[in-house]
Amino acid sequence: MFVVCLDLEGVLVPEIWIGVSKKTGIDELKLTTRDISDYDLLMKRRIGILDQHNLKLKDIQDVIATIKPLDGAEKFLNDLREITQVVILSDTFTQFASPLMKQLGWPAIFCNELIIDKTNRIADYKLRQKDGKKHAVMGFHSMGFKVIAAGDSYNDLSMIREADGGVLFCPPEKIIGENPDIPVTFTYDELLSNIKMFLEKN
Amino acid sequence: MFVVCLDLEGVLVPEIWIGVSKKTGIDELKLTTRDISDYDLLMKRRIGILDQHNLKLKDIQDVIATIKPLDGAEKFLNDLREITQVVILSDTFTQFASPLMKQLGWPAIFCNELIIDKTNRIADYKLRQKDGKKHAVMGFHSMGFKVIAAGDSYNDLSMIREADGGVLFCPPEKIIGENPDIPVTFTYDELLSNIKMFLEKN
Repeated sequence: MFVVCLDLEGVLVPEIWIGVSKKTGIDELKLTTRDISDYDLLMKRRIGILDQHNLKLKDIQDVIATIKPLDGAEKFLNDLREITQVVILSDTFTQFASPLMKQLGWPAIFCNELIIDKTNRIADYKLRQKDGKKHAVMGFHSMGFKVIAAGDSYNDLSMIREADGGVLFCPPEKIIGENPDIPVTFTYDELLSNIKMFLEKN
Repeated sequence: MFVVCLDLEGVLVPEIWIGVSKKTGIDELKLTTRDISDYDLLMKRRIGILDQHNLKLKDIQDVIATIKPLDGAEKFLNDLREITQVVILSDTFTQFASPLMKQLGWPAIFCNELIIDKTNRIADYKLRQKDGKKHAVMGFHSMGFKVIAAGDSYNDLSMIREADGGVLFCPPEKIIGENPDIPVTFTYDELLSNIKMFLEKN
């Protein structure tokens, strides 16, 4: 029995912070871990920027609701849910993911959480656990599942390595070069075929 | 962060074997663990009955596709998926659950598996693991989740006991009497309120 663990941003939906940056016109929100490598520092900075612009959770959720899943993502996800179990593993926050999950037909997503104060301001964030994607795969193993994992970036590698089968989806060239043993796919058809092949073999 | 674990049969959909018995007119398929307490013996008997009637997996799936989820189940499930993560934990088989999951919008379900031979005959079955519902709750704990579990029968008690919060939904009187400490609900509104209360408190 199988669970397919899918990364969210870059696999099913666009990068959320970049989308928020574009839609709000706040250029600084484009900052990623490539600019500020310390994630905690980056998140505190983002929260500070939202405060400066007096943007509350509701404002950001309204913006995120206008972001569309990637072309073909909904069909891919439904095709996949017809043949196996799917759980999205993401480093984003439930409150941000929610408007996108609605558009995708409420698949299960395991991610992190924002701490919202009484005025609806984003006050802080809480990681469910360190290296949550990898631990989720370990948890599924403890439940007797085989796991297939697919993602596009560095924070997906530990989950892919922990899984029984792993696939990269539209990753940067650098990651392809550094991980020559992981199959690479560039379309949903390819990704679905790759997953089906694994299900049939195992 | 929370995962709500829901039993399937009796909570979201009618008892599947009873539905199959009614729809096919094969009375013997109504047998449950109350009639034959050894589950393995019961399943072997059921498979034998299907063979006698030359019923393949596809025939049974066609029958199950005509079974409807319980009144209000889809709305309840969607309301719940808007506020938290939901995984259905069931002792049924993926191949039987699939036509019902389609009607419920493909929620994640962790259950067992039928072994199908090349002629589409149900040849055997495979449990994912012993006491799979309880182990699933333990697995979610290892992922850093708090777990709320809801079910209606004896095979739900270990999952409810293992969870951080548990609720019975339309259980038999006997189970209520034997488990006076577990809250009991009889409508989806009550169940949803009970879960929301737990989410707010924790």
